[in-house]
Amino acid sequence: MLKRDNFHLRQEKIYTYLEDRKLEAVLLADLEGQRNKSLRYLCGHPRDALLFLFAGGSSTLLPWDVPPAEERASVDRIIPYTDYDRSIPDAVGGIIKERGMDLSSRVEISGRFFFPSVTELKQVLPEVEFICQDEGIDAFILNLRSVKDSEEISLMREAAHITNEIIDGIERLLSDKPGKITELELAFYIEAKAREMGAEGLGFETLVASPQRSFAVHTFPNYTTQTIGGRGISIVDFGVRFSGYTSDVTLSIIRKPLNQVQKKMIQAVEDVYDLALSLIAFGKKPSVIAQGVDEAFRERGFRMPHGLGHGIGLDAHEKPLLRSETQGKSEKAICDGMVFAIEPGLYHPEAGGIRLENDILFTEGKAEVLTDAHFIRLPV
Amino acid sequence: MLKRDNFHLRQEKIYTYLEDRKLEAVLLADLEGQRNKSLRYLCGHPRDALLFLFAGGSSTLLPWDVPPAEERASVDRIIPYTDYDRSIPDAVGGIIKERGMDLSSRVEISGRFFFPSVTELKQVLPEVEFICQDEGIDAFILNLRSVKDSEEISLMREAAHITNEIIDGIERLLSDKPGKITELELAFYIEAKAREMGAEGLGFETLVASPQRSFAVHTFPNYTTQTIGGRGISIVDFGVRFSGYTSDVTLSIIRKPLNQVQKKMIQAVEDVYDLALSLIAFGKKPSVIAQGVDEAFRERGFRMPHGLGHGIGLDAHEKPLLRSETQGKSEKAICDGMVFAIEPGLYHPEAGGIRLENDILFTEGKAEVLTDAHFIRLPV
Repeated sequence: MLKRDNFHLRQEKIYTYLEDRKLEAVLLADLEGQRNKSLRYLCGHPRDALLFLFAGGSSTLLPWDVPPAEERASVDRIIPYTDYDRSIPDAVGGIIKERGMDLSSRVEISGRFFFPSVTELKQVLPEVEFICQDEGIDAFILNLRSVKDSEEISLMREAAHITNEIIDGIERLLSDKPGKITELELAFYIEAKAREMGAEGLGFETLVASPQRSFAVHTFPNYTTQTIGGRGISIVDFGVRFSGYTSDVTLSIIRKPLNQVQKKMIQAVEDVYDLALSLIAFGKKPSVIAQGVDEAFRERGFRMPHGLGHGIGLDAHEKPLLRSETQGKSEKAICDGMVFAIEPGLYHPEAGGIRLENDILFTEGKAEVLTDAHFIRLPV
Repeated sequence: MLKRDNFHLRQEKIYTYLEDRKLEAVLLADLEGQRNKSLRYLCGHPRDALLFLFAGGSSTLLPWDVPPAEERASVDRIIPYTDYDRSIPDAVGGIIKERGMDLSSRVEISGRFFFPSVTELKQVLPEVEFICQDEGIDAFILNLRSVKDSEEISLMREAAHITNEIIDGIERLLSDKPGKITELELAFYIEAKAREMGAEGLGFETLVASPQRSFAVHTFPNYTTQTIGGRGISIVDFGVRFSGYTSDVTLSIIRKPLNQVQKKMIQAVEDVYDLALSLIAFGKKPSVIAQGVDEAFRERGFRMPHGLGHGIGLDAHEKPLLRSETQGKSEKAICDGMVFAIEPGLYHPEAGGIRLENDILFTEGKAEVLTDAHFIRLPV
């Protein structure tokens, strides 16, 4: 678990945010259907709670379940969310009244609240000025989260280390019994090994797609009882979550014979992956890197249906986003402490899909590839 | 997979909703961080898409990934979401312009859109009257979903059947090797058996909590490599998802010696579970049943930190909600076709937790218990 000190350091930055903007409080929630890992980032409590941070420097957590919060949360005060019947307006009203906020209080609510929920708060508490915006507190915290501190980096290195052991294991498994392992067995191997090595779990549900299912970016169902590693291209996409921080890698498994389309796709992804690595540099906008990659695919007659990559950390998808479409929008340039996955991929309804994804730590002005995902070529 | 006809039948109900309210369109989304199973309910496409239903009776799906949509979605038209750079305002603007909606069009957006996202739509498309409310289209669809049709019921019976086979297997496993099985092995046993029997996957991440971790309603991490079934009370909570529809059961595993608190908790949950079953009756408000249960716990000196139960179906938590707190709010009375889980439970920081959860189909005026979860008592 992270040291308590780090959580307080992060909370301090929010208190400064409040002061700068003359806000009385900010409110975040992590609830079913409305997840927000920034809550865990700020106080260590993993899920199912509201978190208030108040100007002047105090924090109140309203967890659904109190005992785990007492064990883990780095906050000044814990009040059971059930005291307010797990109702957002009741909880917010109760806390605001209890604090005796004056009538002109300004409270910022995370932009990850649903529209009707914020509308209701504004109606129920008309005296309070509620602010809820796209580029407000969430973007502020996501920008903090996009640059990892040294403790976060060591957690991500550990997630990468476990991931690499698993990659070796997958290669052994598939080489020992080519065409015999099922998608399900492979998915279980990944999760068991991760947990045995001390991971908290997976960062997201593993995807294992044998050649006839690999045409989808996110195959559905995520894995089945059919065998993996048959002729053509199979995809395995997984992440290991260590103390909250996830890795994210994709291997493609190649088994001959291949047709011309498959050969061209494989070559294109390999080339473009190398190009992407070479484009990563200090001070560069992530969208510019992504554009270089999209352009290279176009030159080869292909189009990638997803972004080049994304930050990883407490979320499997966070800032920085490496997507052409974000060009012109505000984005932070590549700098030390950023950790992100790059994942060039191509998909064809008949030929199947191919993707290569590794995790990059940008440190000391250079890209360090943390994970060892690669194409696994099985014997015919 | 469901027959296409059923999806059209459901879409028809939305077209009537549009006509009754003089709306031009409704918009739903199922996206990362903003899940909404009503999209799958209406068209069969499992995830990552926007869905428009237009007055007059036509539907347009904007899936992120087109090939799986072409395979599964029951809609009139498919447009890649990537054509609009996966941007909600761009997609909504594009679709509205393309349809040539007039300036006074009224469009209802699901209440599961974030506040800043709806605010942006209103700003970008000021001519359109956007409606986004708590008790609008979402509640309408959730009410439809709370009463299952015959096809849904047969899918849920199949999910329950697989669940019951797994419960038998868990009992055998734990009895054969008491104190030797790890939380992880048990979780994997559940998932492997489910998928081997044809389940799409799990309804939610399994919870397996040995006695020292069972004090939390939702133990964290969900399972570890420590052994299960030691002295005291362990909890196993899982659901099997069959063609999208999930079961939800909780077993408690009891191994002596027990202290007085544990004995009292076990007895209370057993008594109250029986009481809950006896309270379920046609025409009764779910909150009234939940209140009876809360009252019974109070009489025994306990307080349950969560609701009595919840509907199950495409979501693990849906309508009807069996919670005392919903009293006074609009709620549908118990009727034929409702499927819900009841899960009385108690938790104590030292004594651990105990919960018993089974799935109920209300049919022909009676509660039919679909699943066989029970307390598993291991030899000392």
